[in-house]
Amino acid sequence: MSHKELPLVLVLGSPLVLTMFEDRFTQRFRILKASDSDLPLDQFLASSSHARSATALLCAGFRVSGETIGQLPSLGLVVTASAGVNHIDVSECRRRGIVIADSGESLSEDVADMAVGLLIDVCRKISAADRYLRKGNWAAFGDFPLAASKLGGKRVGIVGLGRIGSEVAKRLEVFGCKISYNSRKKKDSVTYPFYIHVHELAANNDAIVVCCGLSDQTRHMIDKKVLLALGKEGVIVNVARGEVINEKEMIQCLLQGEIGGAGLDVFEDEPNVPKELFGLDNVVLSPHNAVLTPDSFESLCEVTIRNLEAFFSKKPLLSELVRVEI
Amino acid sequence: MSHKELPLVLVLGSPLVLTMFEDRFTQRFRILKASDSDLPLDQFLASSSHARSATALLCAGFRVSGETIGQLPSLGLVVTASAGVNHIDVSECRRRGIVIADSGESLSEDVADMAVGLLIDVCRKISAADRYLRKGNWAAFGDFPLAASKLGGKRVGIVGLGRIGSEVAKRLEVFGCKISYNSRKKKDSVTYPFYIHVHELAANNDAIVVCCGLSDQTRHMIDKKVLLALGKEGVIVNVARGEVINEKEMIQCLLQGEIGGAGLDVFEDEPNVPKELFGLDNVVLSPHNAVLTPDSFESLCEVTIRNLEAFFSKKPLLSELVRVEI
Repeated sequence: MSHKELPLVLVLGSPLVLTMFEDRFTQRFRILKASDSDLPLDQFLASSSHARSATALLCAGFRVSGETIGQLPSLGLVVTASAGVNHIDVSECRRRGIVIADSGESLSEDVADMAVGLLIDVCRKISAADRYLRKGNWAAFGDFPLAASKLGGKRVGIVGLGRIGSEVAKRLEVFGCKISYNSRKKKDSVTYPFYIHVHELAANNDAIVVCCGLSDQTRHMIDKKVLLALGKEGVIVNVARGEVINEKEMIQCLLQGEIGGAGLDVFEDEPNVPKELFGLDNVVLSPHNAVLTPDSFESLCEVTIRNLEAFFSKKPLLSELVRVEI
Repeated sequence: MSHKELPLVLVLGSPLVLTMFEDRFTQRFRILKASDSDLPLDQFLASSSHARSATALLCAGFRVSGETIGQLPSLGLVVTASAGVNHIDVSECRRRGIVIADSGESLSEDVADMAVGLLIDVCRKISAADRYLRKGNWAAFGDFPLAASKLGGKRVGIVGLGRIGSEVAKRLEVFGCKISYNSRKKKDSVTYPFYIHVHELAANNDAIVVCCGLSDQTRHMIDKKVLLALGKEGVIVNVARGEVINEKEMIQCLLQGEIGGAGLDVFEDEPNVPKELFGLDNVVLSPHNAVLTPDSFESLCEVTIRNLEAFFSKKPLLSELVRVEI
């Protein structure tokens, strides 16, 4: 097949998976990057008949607005190389009958591993103790002063029991944690106790792990009221999106000792991490790193390409988005 | 029962469990602390007929030498409030028919949690990334530069598949790790592949987790040869005793990039941590913290008291040491 005969994929933004595995994509698809044009996106789309003829769009975190979708009359598929779809106007896609495919299972394990790692770290003070040792304080001032708490027996509430949340639950069970969850609705496939309100989930658990998608319904869903219900010993872990938590209120709760600790992979205004968090030993900070292992990117590349190939050959997609978790 | 009628327990050193739960012990036993005397231990034992009449001895990390045991003609039990027994002259106890009881299951879960926490931290660079963020580097210099590696699919070799090693294996299996082990001999109770030599275990795994007891056989068992077999991407986690690893050779391997990283809860000369480790981002340092949660100390107190009570009422001990793991 000559290059011109390859199916066209319009790319918005600079998906890392494309940068890392460019050859694999260009062998299979004619890649048209909006970012190669100096024009603003709307002008580029207005001026490029090629772009407007695209039936498939590839993105990662880049905002795909209703207006952008409106400029693409032939669009049938949006593939995002990410676990979340909060950057995509999902309603507009639905309305137009445009299918969305995401990262599928490829990133769930890594995100779940990170969630468990952050929870262990906060409970057992691993990063804080590491800092203590690197300063030479153990020899100089004696034992590390912060009390750790045991993982086993902890009641852990999962916010959003989708692919990632389920992997987190599976892992924590083997540590002896007692799992419950909050989700849009009760799942028949699991026996974990279900709480319809996240406030109730927080009130009945020692820790909560936020794994849900970001949507209008989940934005700032974890606010001061929920955190106060979690309580002074309670730990919150967030591997979803920063905006699911009201960050200002969380910081106030941490500074005032209203919650016990936090393990945060995501923030409201990345890469700007609120400086108030830098001095806290009951907090572990991670730079939206939950999915950044090479193995995962390999899987992500695979699933992204297979979704595109399936679409062009009119076969079922590998990871069609049915609904947004929570 | 009056205080004088309570059974006598001689205490060497200052077991933390006794400090934390003194009342629970003094309600049940007449506690005689060698540390209350100003005399050196051998002189105290020579001068105190009470001490010499003791049938039970309680310790934690304090050295119980053959000479000390020789001064205690009535001794029938040594209870140590610790997971390891390397501070006790086990051979001399054996020869004299003195029974040893240790912490039993009470600390295994915490140590295993810490081992998994350290492994996730080293693989996913949690503490290193946390330091990066606290310096404000994410906003200033962009993405955290160190590549993480995925836990799932990793081949992990457990050194010493005793109570702790088994708990580590159980946890790591759920992350998708492939477990194998090295131990004094093959265990019929598990199906994990067995390597008779630790060198072979290292050569066939991506990470090794050291969980064995310290003995003359295991001292410096992990040396340069073993670490070179583990390889440039290999990770070592130690929650056993610092002396199981030849620390100098490990540091050389880390500095020269001969191994990929290390998660260390124990060191050869605690609390002195070799300064060469302080600057390394592929290392996580923990101050012998694996068992320091209040919940575990509660369990440790329980098992220690129950072992003493069982001994005095001639019942089977809760956690009699049958043999030292590796």
